[in-house]
Amino acid sequence: MALIVQKYGGTSVGSLDRIRNVANRIKTLRDEGNQVVAVVSAMGGVTDKLIAMAKELIDEPTEREMDVLLSTGEQQSIALVTMALHQIGVDAVSITGRQAGISTTGSHTRGRINAINPDMMKNYLKEGKVLICAGFQGLREDGMIHTLGRGGSDLSAIAVASALKADVCQILTDVDGVYTSDPRVVKDARKLPEISYDEMLEMASAGTKVMQSRSVEFAKKYGVVFEVRSSLNNNPGTIVTEEHDQMEAVVIRGVSIERSQALVTITGIPDEPGMSAKILMCLADAEINIDMIVSNIAYDGLARHSFTMHSSDLGKASAALKPCIAQLSPDSTILTESGIAKLSCVGIGMRSHSGVAAKMFEALGEAKINIGVITTSEIKIAVTVDEHQIEDAARAVHEAFNLDKAPTA
Amino acid sequence: MALIVQKYGGTSVGSLDRIRNVANRIKTLRDEGNQVVAVVSAMGGVTDKLIAMAKELIDEPTEREMDVLLSTGEQQSIALVTMALHQIGVDAVSITGRQAGISTTGSHTRGRINAINPDMMKNYLKEGKVLICAGFQGLREDGMIHTLGRGGSDLSAIAVASALKADVCQILTDVDGVYTSDPRVVKDARKLPEISYDEMLEMASAGTKVMQSRSVEFAKKYGVVFEVRSSLNNNPGTIVTEEHDQMEAVVIRGVSIERSQALVTITGIPDEPGMSAKILMCLADAEINIDMIVSNIAYDGLARHSFTMHSSDLGKASAALKPCIAQLSPDSTILTESGIAKLSCVGIGMRSHSGVAAKMFEALGEAKINIGVITTSEIKIAVTVDEHQIEDAARAVHEAFNLDKAPTA
Repeated sequence: MALIVQKYGGTSVGSLDRIRNVANRIKTLRDEGNQVVAVVSAMGGVTDKLIAMAKELIDEPTEREMDVLLSTGEQQSIALVTMALHQIGVDAVSITGRQAGISTTGSHTRGRINAINPDMMKNYLKEGKVLICAGFQGLREDGMIHTLGRGGSDLSAIAVASALKADVCQILTDVDGVYTSDPRVVKDARKLPEISYDEMLEMASAGTKVMQSRSVEFAKKYGVVFEVRSSLNNNPGTIVTEEHDQMEAVVIRGVSIERSQALVTITGIPDEPGMSAKILMCLADAEINIDMIVSNIAYDGLARHSFTMHSSDLGKASAALKPCIAQLSPDSTILTESGIAKLSCVGIGMRSHSGVAAKMFEALGEAKINIGVITTSEIKIAVTVDEHQIEDAARAVHEAFNLDKAPTA
Repeated sequence: MALIVQKYGGTSVGSLDRIRNVANRIKTLRDEGNQVVAVVSAMGGVTDKLIAMAKELIDEPTEREMDVLLSTGEQQSIALVTMALHQIGVDAVSITGRQAGISTTGSHTRGRINAINPDMMKNYLKEGKVLICAGFQGLREDGMIHTLGRGGSDLSAIAVASALKADVCQILTDVDGVYTSDPRVVKDARKLPEISYDEMLEMASAGTKVMQSRSVEFAKKYGVVFEVRSSLNNNPGTIVTEEHDQMEAVVIRGVSIERSQALVTITGIPDEPGMSAKILMCLADAEINIDMIVSNIAYDGLARHSFTMHSSDLGKASAALKPCIAQLSPDSTILTESGIAKLSCVGIGMRSHSGVAAKMFEALGEAKINIGVITTSEIKIAVTVDEHQIEDAARAVHEAFNLDKAPTA
């Protein structure tokens, strides 16, 4: 008998029929002799509808009240899934975030889990019950209703799995698992049987939107091995786990793409300490998330700073930067470029294999694709290319590293 | 500066426009310098929609899960009302039943309030905030989400008013107040400026469905004076309070009617101790609420027991009674009569005035209305009449006691 924690997203519980499907899946696991804790999101569409009502009343609802409003979505779905289980004879009980003992901290709408007291869940499990637990929510230390922000239900599931020392944690979603690349772009992309936390983190930050980074970080921190798999079939998905020796044999785990990027380059800034910080601070004040950061020094001793960001932020970024850099140097200029995309190769094997960047750039060169800026981390190489070439770029790199074939260990 | 507790029902917050209206009403009170705590129900229709979803999943949802599901309705409305207040510049904050410190006991869906810890509310009031508090819900001692059943939001409001020692408690509803009789039936029915708790209780049990009895009982127990008034206008309503001397000067406060009643009469039961109890127990086992109970002894020493109930229960009552009374006596028979209605005269003045029943029966006799069974309490006289005569009966009695005219104290 295993203790299985599953997470079902909003699409999986998006209608009463789908709720019945989820109940049937849980019953199957239960009938096989497992203990089951299912963490569920709000029914698809419910959250959007609540947000629309709020926005009709006020342009910028306070985050405290949004938490109170939105947390009702999960509370409804746990009750409904539990009822669907009762209908098919499964002894189940709903558990809110508060009842799951999920204690949170931080700002409203962006809660962080700081502790779990699983006593109530353990008692119900001892009684032989299936638990249907509300994702996305917890109780803040000061007694406030608190939601965990985007991807919060994944985080809840991993935290619950950790607190209950579950044998298995499954993140059920509308994709089959993590692929070597986006299968809509790279036809022979292959589902990965496993991936390390670090690779998963880099893939997430590189545009492979299976899960939010912080859920993966949380899993890594607490050593929760989890599987990303489909809620629509019973195919094995991708296991996300601590890296092990065999993983290093693979140079590149996957190729991620991220479209709609823009590049801002600032020139003519004196090469002095603190200049980069001032520029980044002014972007941060304008609440612009930047992605790649590249700085180098031109022949004239003046620095050249480049950043990428989502192209929808470009106007705001320009407006914020102009007064800021004018202050730093009268000779500064801003160059902007949109219509670019980012290509990232991710793999822990990179650490022990040389020539990975060279091979990647060679493949791009042969495909006549020009590289813009380049950044690297220990396990990732990312480049920008023209957006209209991103699909060709992904295919070329995918092929160069033979990602369509399972590695022979 | 007064501390005002108001309760707004589901109709009052039934749409975003109505929520804005409620917000404006609260702002007016606030601008006049008052502290305001508004207890709100779920938006009209939301609860029914949730119940329909539950029933689609399972015929008889467990009460525990119904509490989890239905309590989301109030949680949504408190957030939305609070947002509407923010939009018009009022510093407001939502408060769930748990946050209001409403501690409950009893079965799911039928919670009873056993304590209130108003600390969080008091702190927010000290900060100058308007509080929007969820009605109908509390936290059970064992940590379960708990709803208070029908009329629960009224109960919440009165409990909150009591815990905060509010200066004013207003139950805002879709009626203007408590009338001497149903204004749709008795054209010159008059709104009562005040009524005693006991009279209100008897009026409620006599079919004047302004509030559930238990809210009035709670108010009486804790000495909470409250006003029933309309949420649609600013007219003064009816103050419900402890009786005082002037109230006794009025013989009859009001005339209530209740239609669709049925009468069951059992004859031929031996006049022995415990017989009534056995008959009543068998009706209780069948979950039939009976109203009037009349017993007397026929000339042959056999007892005659009559009960009234809602006519929709008549079939179930007959089915339950037949085997039961056959056991008590082979000579027993059941007579049933539907198509009757109940007329009740209520007033604490009855205690000190004689001849009230005579005057009431005289009025009915002059109107050629035959009286069926009669029951009396210290402050109520109730009779059954043919249902098609109930309106004439109400008008005749209303006129006989001059209820259209304000009493001269």
